[in-house]
Amino acid sequence: MENKRPLFLVTNDDGIDAGGIRALVDMVSDLGRVVVVAPDGPRSGQSCALTVSRPLRLTYVGGEGDVSYYKTDGTPVDCVKLAINELLGGRPDLILSGINHGSNTAISTIYSGTMGAAYEGSVIGVPSAGFSLCTHELEPDFGCCRNMVRRTVSALLVSGLPDSVCLNINIPYKCDIKGVRLSRQALGYWTEEYEKRTDPRGQAYYWVTGRFVNTEPDAEDTDSWAVANGYISVVPTACDRTALSSFPAVKNLLSLT
Amino acid sequence: MENKRPLFLVTNDDGIDAGGIRALVDMVSDLGRVVVVAPDGPRSGQSCALTVSRPLRLTYVGGEGDVSYYKTDGTPVDCVKLAINELLGGRPDLILSGINHGSNTAISTIYSGTMGAAYEGSVIGVPSAGFSLCTHELEPDFGCCRNMVRRTVSALLVSGLPDSVCLNINIPYKCDIKGVRLSRQALGYWTEEYEKRTDPRGQAYYWVTGRFVNTEPDAEDTDSWAVANGYISVVPTACDRTALSSFPAVKNLLSLT
Repeated sequence: MENKRPLFLVTNDDGIDAGGIRALVDMVSDLGRVVVVAPDGPRSGQSCALTVSRPLRLTYVGGEGDVSYYKTDGTPVDCVKLAINELLGGRPDLILSGINHGSNTAISTIYSGTMGAAYEGSVIGVPSAGFSLCTHELEPDFGCCRNMVRRTVSALLVSGLPDSVCLNINIPYKCDIKGVRLSRQALGYWTEEYEKRTDPRGQAYYWVTGRFVNTEPDAEDTDSWAVANGYISVVPTACDRTALSSFPAVKNLLSLT
Repeated sequence: MENKRPLFLVTNDDGIDAGGIRALVDMVSDLGRVVVVAPDGPRSGQSCALTVSRPLRLTYVGGEGDVSYYKTDGTPVDCVKLAINELLGGRPDLILSGINHGSNTAISTIYSGTMGAAYEGSVIGVPSAGFSLCTHELEPDFGCCRNMVRRTVSALLVSGLPDSVCLNINIPYKCDIKGVRLSRQALGYWTEEYEKRTDPRGQAYYWVTGRFVNTEPDAEDTDSWAVANGYISVVPTACDRTALSSFPAVKNLLSLT
C-alpha cells in the first residue's frame, strides 16, 4: 500500500551534523516522512550556488522509521536538486531548510545557503520555507522554534504558497515572543568587511568579517525590526528578481521606445 | 592632481583568463580607469556566494596605463567586496560583470555568478550591469557586444540606476540584432539534471547537466523570448527579494492579523 503521509525534504547550510537540522527533523517527523539531504559540512554564504566544475557525491548516512539521512559534498541547492532527481523520484510535498544557526534577515537573504535551498524549492513549485534562529550562542536551544515550525508546516500542507514564492522565517532567541509579523526584507549592506593578515611567508590573506549597516532601523515593516523587537518575521520571498517598478526609469535611461 | 576619469570595477564568473572579460575591458578602457578583480578560474553557478570558511588571496597580475588586473581565489561577490574594501579605498563609479560566455536569462539569473557580482553592486549603491553573450560556441567573437556595452556604460555614468536595482543584459550571437527590449525574467526551471556515473572503485558520482524548461515560451515580454527572437534583453533586477504581491496570500495562510 502506498504511503500517503506527506513527504518532507529537509536540508540546511550548516551541514548534516548541525544541531539545527536535527531539531527541525524532530519537530516535523510525526507529521510526515522525512528525507534529509544536507551538505557534509558548513556551507554558510553559499547563496543559490550550484556545483558545475566537479561531480557530486550522495551518501546514505542512516535513518530510522520514516526518517532517512543523506549527505552530499555540494551546496544546499545541489542537495535539493540531487534529492529530487536522484533520490525521491519526484517532488516532495514541502522543502524545509534550516534551522539556521544565526539570522538571515535583511540583505543576508541573498548570501544565505539556507534560503538558497528554499529558493530552489520555489523555482520548481514546491512550497518551501527557510527557518533561522537569531543567535550566535554556541549551543543554542532550538526548541523555541518548535511552535512556529509546526504552524508553518501545517499551513503549507493545507494551502501551499503562491507561485515562485518561498518563506524566509526568522525567530528571535530567548525572549518572550510577541507574535508573528509579515515583513519585508530590510535595506542595508555590510561594511568594513575584511581582516587582513600576513602568513608565515609574508603574503597577505583576508578573512571576511564586517558588520551589517541597517539603513532603515526604524522601519517597523522590516524583518530586522521585527526580530529586534521580539517578533518572528515572515518574509515572502521571490525567485523572480525582475524589478518591475524600475521599468520606467530604465526605459528612460537607455532611451528605449 | 586627482584623476577625475570615472572608475570601473570589472569582474566576471568565467575567470580572469576568459576572453569575455578582456573584451569587456577593451570596450570601456577609453571611457575611464579600469580595475579588474576577477576569480583565478571559472566560477560559473556561484550565484551570490561569498567565502566565509577560509581566507582569500588577492594578487596583482599586471596592467598598463589606466587598466590594472588582479585575481582572487574567491567568488565574483568576493571579488567585488575585496576590491572595494582592500583595493579601491571606496566605491567605483560602475561595476561591470562579464562578458559571460553563455546566456543568463530566465531562472539562470539566480545561479549566475556574473549576476552575483552585479547584485553586490546594487546592494552597496553602485550602478552595476552584468553582460552575457548567448552562445556556447567555443571561441566566440565578443565584438558584437561592443555597441550595447558602451551605450549602457555611457547611460549609467549619466543617470545611474534606481536604488537596489542592477541590469541583466543578454546579447544574442551572430544575428542581425533587431533592437533592445526591456524584459522581465522568464519563468521556468531545469529538469533531468544529473548524469550518474560510476568511478573505478564502483562508487556513484553525479555531474550536473539537464535542460531548461521555459514555462512561458510565447511570452513576448520575457528575456528568453527577446534573445530567441534577435533582441538584446535588459532586465532590471532587484536585490530586494520581498514578494510584496504575495502578502495577502501569506497573511491568510498563517492566519496573521
